[in-house]
Amino acid sequence: MSNQSTFPVSSLLSYTSDALRACGLPERDAAITAKAMIEADLTGADAHGIFRLASYVKVLQQKRINPQAKMRVVNRGPATALIDGDNGMGHLVMTHAAETAVEIAREAGVAWVGARRSNHAGAAGFYASIPMAHGMIGIYAACSSANHMAPTGSAEALLGTNPIAVAIPAGEEPPVVLDIATSVIAFGAIRTAAMQGKSVPEGWLIDRTTGKPLTDPKRGHDALMEPIGGYKGAGLALVIGLLAAVLNGAAFGRDVNDFNTDHGGETNTGQFVIALDTARFIDPTTFAAEIDRHLHDFKASARLPGFDVIRLPGMERLRRREERSRNGVTLAGALAKQLNELAGSLGIAPLGARG
Amino acid sequence: MSNQSTFPVSSLLSYTSDALRACGLPERDAAITAKAMIEADLTGADAHGIFRLASYVKVLQQKRINPQAKMRVVNRGPATALIDGDNGMGHLVMTHAAETAVEIAREAGVAWVGARRSNHAGAAGFYASIPMAHGMIGIYAACSSANHMAPTGSAEALLGTNPIAVAIPAGEEPPVVLDIATSVIAFGAIRTAAMQGKSVPEGWLIDRTTGKPLTDPKRGHDALMEPIGGYKGAGLALVIGLLAAVLNGAAFGRDVNDFNTDHGGETNTGQFVIALDTARFIDPTTFAAEIDRHLHDFKASARLPGFDVIRLPGMERLRRREERSRNGVTLAGALAKQLNELAGSLGIAPLGARG
Repeated sequence: MSNQSTFPVSSLLSYTSDALRACGLPERDAAITAKAMIEADLTGADAHGIFRLASYVKVLQQKRINPQAKMRVVNRGPATALIDGDNGMGHLVMTHAAETAVEIAREAGVAWVGARRSNHAGAAGFYASIPMAHGMIGIYAACSSANHMAPTGSAEALLGTNPIAVAIPAGEEPPVVLDIATSVIAFGAIRTAAMQGKSVPEGWLIDRTTGKPLTDPKRGHDALMEPIGGYKGAGLALVIGLLAAVLNGAAFGRDVNDFNTDHGGETNTGQFVIALDTARFIDPTTFAAEIDRHLHDFKASARLPGFDVIRLPGMERLRRREERSRNGVTLAGALAKQLNELAGSLGIAPLGARG
Repeated sequence: MSNQSTFPVSSLLSYTSDALRACGLPERDAAITAKAMIEADLTGADAHGIFRLASYVKVLQQKRINPQAKMRVVNRGPATALIDGDNGMGHLVMTHAAETAVEIAREAGVAWVGARRSNHAGAAGFYASIPMAHGMIGIYAACSSANHMAPTGSAEALLGTNPIAVAIPAGEEPPVVLDIATSVIAFGAIRTAAMQGKSVPEGWLIDRTTGKPLTDPKRGHDALMEPIGGYKGAGLALVIGLLAAVLNGAAFGRDVNDFNTDHGGETNTGQFVIALDTARFIDPTTFAAEIDRHLHDFKASARLPGFDVIRLPGMERLRRREERSRNGVTLAGALAKQLNELAGSLGIAPLGARG
């Protein structure tokens, strides 16, 4: 662990923004994308933060993602919009989608904004939180650009671990921000175990030839990831995929073009955001007080043996954000080294050289 | 099993409607409620169908549910509505909510309609399917009127097994209708095991004093139901509860007044329906063809050992509906007997005497 380095948030933001500009993104787009990425590092969704930068740089340089994308709204209703992302960075497309949803929901009370020709957008909670920053409820869901799960009974990976995030403002309490994939465990945790030569518990993976639990994460090609609650999680992944992808004209099922393994072609990723104006249902001050009261009840409830604290979605996220904003973000040695080399190849100032 | 009786759907409908009228419901309200209940029997959600009638009759007679409820829209926006159910039958309130959502979504593209002062509304899939009958996507969720789950780390039942349903129209294929509680298993399955003196598998229940799996379903008072995917399912139940109840001014957490055990007082149940007009995003004919293509891909995919068929949400539902519409609905002997006695006490024609 002596190998770790800690960097201030401002350094991570300027570094990421510079790297994206070096790949051809306009300054404003680079800044928006960097903000979405580094927010993941701040809130603890580390696998969706600067960790991904090198792979984004690669696909931007290959022009598999369009650095000069011109997004446009292709269909706009009184409470809906469909955005064509022009194969740009997903962070950019979905930040725009969430802001469009807020704008529409201010007039209509609720907005449903879908996107096609988008790309991987990182941490789901970030986009659900954009309406929340405007006092609204935010919901975000995505059809993954890689398939790791199967429909119930199938031996084929035809479903992504399609995530959903819901953000609900509170008063004094940390807001509720749920951000979950529909798989039992994140793909990153399996990759990490494989790199460390460890086995994984039963319940994470099944062997697609036998249908039995698989504990060797290196046998990735034989493995299917397990959905939460069996057929229930598979069903959630299915409906999220149909709503986020098929409804928007994006890739689903056999059409998914795996971002990590395939060569060439755009991913045509689909996502959606809902913004809901609480004031159409309840006085927002009353709502905040009621949310606080219930969260407080939950936190003060009797605990199961072995638990020091009642875990509510969003609590740790806020604690990490405060701590990392103050003390900086700690990166593993290998990641810091990779980013240093990337700075050299892109001709930008390395992380350590930034104030 | 020789004790079973099979009745035509028309008999179940007229019997249920007559029973509700005998409890003071106006004719139209009785017919709407009966339709929602018997649809559950038709589609296989048996625990939400005529099985519940005797308990509804009891609370209607006690005036804990208002048979003469006058629902009203208390807040209406361009794409939202909030309905006060006047403590009427939940089926009536949520049928009205779903129809209102369809009407609003026709203009706005999407509608979010919440309800407070509602009651248990039976099968979630029924309300998600109302927008679907108009070619739209329907989403329904409810905050249960009984708490059986705990927030992660808590030893107290502060959360319902809050269900969600999503209905998506297809073309030639059966439509996708997902209808799931956020618990691993339905409460009914635990009650059934208890009645039959059977134990339940590990993973369904935990002991609230030890936090360990509980397999004796008769120790209900010590038990918490397990959410799907651990903290993920608990998080889903939490956000569904906040959206369906707190946002609408309905009961959540410690305020929940258990329908099954408490005496007196209304439940103030909260639910919501979303209707989404697919035509705002994609040509509906193209959408239907694309859904069909993907469902067909899934059904034709390689199967895991031990599976005869790939299970997709809504497939069995449609098959059962067709079979039971044709051949009638089979009720257990004890239930048929109970309904016969109920007919006597209400002064209506028994099931067996109806054409």
